[in-house]
Order: sequence, then structure tokens, then C-alpha cells
Amino acid sequence: MIATLFFEPSTRTRLSFESAISRLGGKIVGFSDASSTSVSKGETLNDTIRTVSNYCDLIVMRHPIEGSARFASEISSVPIINAGDGANQHPSQTLLDLYSIKKTQGRLEDLNIFLVGDLKYGRTVHSLMMAMSHWNATFNFISPEELKMPEEYKIYLDNAGLKYYEHTDFTDIISKADIIYMTRVQRERFSDPIEYEKVKNVYVLRNSMLKNTKASMRILHPLPRVNEIHIDVDANPKAYYFEQALNGVYTRQAILCSLLGIK
Amino acid sequence: MIATLFFEPSTRTRLSFESAISRLGGKIVGFSDASSTSVSKGETLNDTIRTVSNYCDLIVMRHPIEGSARFASEISSVPIINAGDGANQHPSQTLLDLYSIKKTQGRLEDLNIFLVGDLKYGRTVHSLMMAMSHWNATFNFISPEELKMPEEYKIYLDNAGLKYYEHTDFTDIISKADIIYMTRVQRERFSDPIEYEKVKNVYVLRNSMLKNTKASMRILHPLPRVNEIHIDVDANPKAYYFEQALNGVYTRQAILCSLLGIK
Amino acid sequence: MIATLFFEPSTRTRLSFESAISRLGGKIVGFSDASSTSVSKGETLNDTIRTVSNYCDLIVMRHPIEGSARFASEISSVPIINAGDGANQHPSQTLLDLYSIKKTQGRLEDLNIFLVGDLKYGRTVHSLMMAMSHWNATFNFISPEELKMPEEYKIYLDNAGLKYYEHTDFTDIISKADIIYMTRVQRERFSDPIEYEKVKNVYVLRNSMLKNTKASMRILHPLPRVNEIHIDVDANPKAYYFEQALNGVYTRQAILCSLLGIK
Repeated sequence: MIATLFFEPSTRTRLSFESAISRLGGKIVGFSDASSTSVSKGETLNDTIRTVSNYCDLIVMRHPIEGSARFASEISSVPIINAGDGANQHPSQTLLDLYSIKKTQGRLEDLNIFLVGDLKYGRTVHSLMMAMSHWNATFNFISPEELKMPEEYKIYLDNAGLKYYEHTDFTDIISKADIIYMTRVQRERFSDPIEYEKVKNVYVLRNSMLKNTKASMRILHPLPRVNEIHIDVDANPKAYYFEQALNGVYTRQAILCSLLGIK
Repeated sequence: MIATLFFEPSTRTRLSFESAISRLGGKIVGFSDASSTSVSKGETLNDTIRTVSNYCDLIVMRHPIEGSARFASEISSVPIINAGDGANQHPSQTLLDLYSIKKTQGRLEDLNIFLVGDLKYGRTVHSLMMAMSHWNATFNFISPEELKMPEEYKIYLDNAGLKYYEHTDFTDIISKADIIYMTRVQRERFSDPIEYEKVKNVYVLRNSMLKNTKASMRILHPLPRVNEIHIDVDANPKAYYFEQALNGVYTRQAILCSLLGIK
Repeated sequence: MIATLFFEPSTRTRLSFESAISRLGGKIVGFSDASSTSVSKGETLNDTIRTVSNYCDLIVMRHPIEGSARFASEISSVPIINAGDGANQHPSQTLLDLYSIKKTQGRLEDLNIFLVGDLKYGRTVHSLMMAMSHWNATFNFISPEELKMPEEYKIYLDNAGLKYYEHTDFTDIISKADIIYMTRVQRERFSDPIEYEKVKNVYVLRNSMLKNTKASMRILHPLPRVNEIHIDVDANPKAYYFEQALNGVYTRQAILCSLLGIK
């Protein structure tokens, strides 16, 4: 009996977790939208978690506030899986990204990882970068000026003795990539709309750009995609994002088994 | 593992399919309202279907755009059941209508079918008419002028050599009916509100109108009903619409079994 | 196969029922919010119940209109569980309250029950009071003037020959309590905001107030709580409201078994 508490909507992650639970024979209670819950009556997260943890063996939660999952884990009598807490972390996404990299490259060590798009606000790229730093990755950060990788993460890599390069375009260097991890550049992140109009097409991956890439290179994306990967890429064997989404189900099954002591 | 993707709300159809799935021992993931999904982040139907088809063995979908189910079936790696695509088709409704007719009349051949109400926009009456044309039906179309059966369907019947009659009232001819299929006349379909006020009570079936109908005649309605069948009809044994709704569960079980190869 | 029809949202009750159903091996269809249902198309409760009762073996329903559950039970071919009908009744809450009292006090007879907060509109306190009147309870009603226990309930107790006392504060008498049943005092119940400001902190239970209470006394609350029990009470062994919520799952399992003839 597993509770899925989505205080903010997320089809992708919720369906992936619910599929994983059902495949393992688990039962699900929960909600997909906090607006139809006690939260709208003013209940605290503390009380929701204390009550729901009485009903179930494990809680999967997504919440808009950073740190909410950690807070919940300190209250709950059952394990908490963080399915995203605001701009902070999305750890099950990172585990499925690692699994996808390992599965397609045969290894995690010594890879050249391209992170493309919104590197300032994207929690998935931050988490993936920190995870990959354990396996001697080289990073190429490709983003508009306004959405560059924050200083704190570059200091983190400096301290770890890892190499990284920053670019505003990636056509010239794409042949070096082992993994291209695309993310969405959102209009609302730009203070100046003219700035957005200038860069919006620079961070769209098209099939024609993939000619000189390595045969083993694979393209990842946390999904949902809007237009940052052109659909003409979908048929290219280097496009791996839909398989990556399926890996999400397998990875979440593994996380659930691990936490519930199922072998 | 079956996904129920309702991009627009529909309790009746969704609960009917989910009951059918559960009765067969299936598991369900999905959503009942697209506003709490990735679609609200701008994801295309293509991406939603490609991702979800990875999670499940079959997809049941309702979508406001005509042709969306066919489009989905061309992308998906698993079977798609169309649970309604805009004003186009609602095939599982038609199969349950056929099943209800066969069950109550003992045959599909040579029946006199009355289609009543909104014959212009009603997708269920269009689908039922085309289906019944295979069994030498005679049709009586009863509707206000503004909501008459479109020309294309009358040409279809002409080509098939079938008889049909158009009326704006049905009190005089009701004794000929084997099946009366009621649909709702919606105020918003009328360009002129005065026109609506004139006709709104003409297309309400009342118990007193049923005196001279055949003993074997049965009344169908796709539900939900608003006021087009007066509640004094409900107790009449000729009222079959609630049993028809139950037939929906059986029919959908049969559709699921057929697509999944269950015998 | 059990339908959970929540015409108005209620996480607490819905999750509790759905947990109970799942623990018994049942399957669930339903909705948690009427806005995405046929009801929004104008369907009557009569039709919804007649249709859904065809799909399932039992219906759990919450509805904003008083008497709706009784009305549904007269139409339905399967048992109806009232999960709250407007300001009228919430019987499964009362059964779990009784179970919690019996479990913590070892008996239901001759107890001193404190009902605190909104005694005018609170359906749970009305139901609990009427239920406990069968076991010679003594009642202390603690509420602001504007939210006093209605006359009809006091007449009911007079006729039953039971003792009750009314107070606007409870610090002096708290040592007599066997059960303190807290409820929320809502700002919107007051015609005069100044009146609310005066009393809002009088009906907040704090740990420091519990010093002179009986060792066997327990604090109940139907949840969700907002601030009427200070969180410093949560760690006190006399705080029983989270266990009470868990008792809700057990009680609802018992109700379901009773109605479905499971022993």
C-alpha cells in the first residue's frame, strides 16, 4: 500500500511511479492535485504526512517547497521518496539518467557530458552534474548568458578537480559529446523578451546537427519536451529520450524494492 | 496494465472503462483531466502517447480533437481505444448501442430506428446510424430544423438504398418505433434563443407518449440525460437506458479482451 | 468493486476509505472532484447513482447536500455509505470516534466528554453527542457564545435525562475530562470579525493546559487541524488524534465487511 501525494501536478513522474508500483503488485492511494485536498483547508504538511503515513507502507511525494521531502522524512514512520521538491532536487530522475547513461555507454567513467539549455534553474541538470562528478566526467555547458550554470556548481567542480567548458552555442563541438542532455529554455526565465527571441532557436537540436556526432552518442531529455528537440530527431537511433522515460519505470521499481526490502 | 488518458472529462465513459478493466483483473494508470498533466506544460500528443505507450499494454483515450485517436494509433506501440475524439466518433458507445439493440430486439435486421434530438452535432447518432445501415434499418429522424441530420449522412443512406424520414415532431408516428434513441438538445447549439425556447419541449419524451408504442419497443440514451427524457418514463419497462449503461461495461470488457488477445 | 463518489473534495475521508477498500482486496472506481464529471453537464444525482450502482457492489459517497445519501440509498441497488452529506451527518466518523473512545478508555459507559470549539455547525460533534447519549455520558460544551450547541440538541439531552454543562472557557474544569474532542473555530462563522479576534485563542489547546488532566484522558480531533491544537501537544501521550485517524481505516474496513457480508 503506497501513497502518491502530488502537491503539484506532474503526469510524467506520477504515471511512472504508479506504473512501477502496479508492476510490483502494490496498491495506490493518493491525490494528483493538492487543490482537492485537506491542504486547501489549511492543513500543515506535518499533519498530512503524520496521518497518511499511518495508512501506507511508503510515501511518494512531490511538493513545491524546497526541503519538504526531507522535512517529511523526519516526521514519517514510513520511507519517503522525493519525487521533486521545488527547485531543489529530483533524485529519482537522476538515478534514471545514470541508468540510461550506463545502459547506452556501457560505463559511467570518463564521459563527455553536454548539458544544454537552462542551466541556471534546471534541477535535473544540477543533480545529474553532481552525480556524474563521481566518475571523472568532463562537462560542456551550453546555455544563453542569462541561464549559465551558477557559480556554486562550477566551484564544486573546481574543488573536485574536474574539467568543464562553457559555450553559448554547440555546433562546433558537438562531435565530442558522449551524452547530450537537453533541457527547455523557457520564455518566462528572461527579463528581456528581446533576449529570449535572440537565443530561442540556438538551443533547438535538429537532426542535421547530428551528422558528425559519435556513433555511440545518445540524446537524453527529462521530458516533457516542447520544441527544444525538433521532431525530425525522433527517428534517429541516437534519440534515447523515450527509452529513457521507460527506464524511469524500471528505476522506480528498483527504488521501491530497495526501500521496502524486496529482493 | 492499462492507461486511461482523458484529455477532457467524462465520468460515464471513464468509470465504465475502469470498471471493465478492473473486472478483468487489469491495473489502471492515467488521468481524468488534462489540466493537471504535462499537456499543460505544452507537451504534444505525440510525446504523451510515445511515453505512456512505454508504460502499459493498452491505452484508452478521450481527446477533444477529431482524428486524435487515429493519430495516436499510428504512433503507439500498444493498441489505442478511442473513447471519443471531439465531434468525430465514439465507437465503444456504438458497440454498446448495437449490443443493447440486439439484446432487446433479438435481432439487428429490419428495425425501425427513431433518432431524436440533436442530429446535427450528435456523434453517437451518426455512428449508430452508419452502423445500423448494415442491417437494413429504416430511420426516422426527429429534430428541430436547426439540428437536422447533415446532408452527407442522408447521401450515405441514399447510396446504401435505405429508407429514412425526417420530422420535426414524433407524436403521430411513435407507434412504428422499435428503438427510440434520445439525445439532448442543447441551448448553446442555437444561434437564436427564441428558436430554442420554441422547440425545447418538443423533444422531451414523457410516459404519456408511450401508450401506443410497440410492446417490444425500447428507449435508449447515451447518458448523461438532462431533461430530454422525463423521469416519469424511468419506471416504464420500455426505459432501457440504465441497463444500456451497464451493457457498456460488458461491451468494453469484450473490446479489451479482443485487443489483448484474451479469450 | 467499490465506487467512491466524492462530489466535494475530502482527502482525509477519501484516502481512509480507499485504504480500507484496498486492504480488503477491493477495487476502486470513482472521482474525487465533481467538477470533472457528468454532474458538470447537468446530470442529476438520481441518474449518477442509478448508473454507477450498475457498475459496482457498493458506493461510498460524499455530497454537499443534506439528505443526499439517504436519497441515494432509496434509488441504489447496492449499499450506500454516507461519507458526509453537507452539515447533516458523517456516520463513519462517529463510529471511528466511538471505537477510539472504547479503545482508549476501556468502556463507553459513564464518561465525561468535553466538546470544544464550533458546536453550532460541527456535524461531527452533533453525531458524537447523540451516539454517546446511549451510554450515560456527561457532556461539557465549551464554545464561544456565537457557536453554542443548538437548542435542539440540548432538548434531546434533557429528554434523555443526561447532564450537560456549558462554558466559554475550559481551563478550570479540564481535570474532569475523560475525552477532549477538539474542533476548529472558523473565522467565516462569525458575523463580527472583532468577535472572532476576541475568542480565537481561547479555543486553542496547549500542552501546558494538560498538566492537571487525568492520566487516562485522551484528546481527539476529526482532522484536518489548523491551529486549534498547538503542535506542542503532539508529543504528549494524551494526544490521540493521529491514532484516531488510523482507527478510521480499521472502522471503515469493518463497515465495508458488514455491508458486504464479509466475516
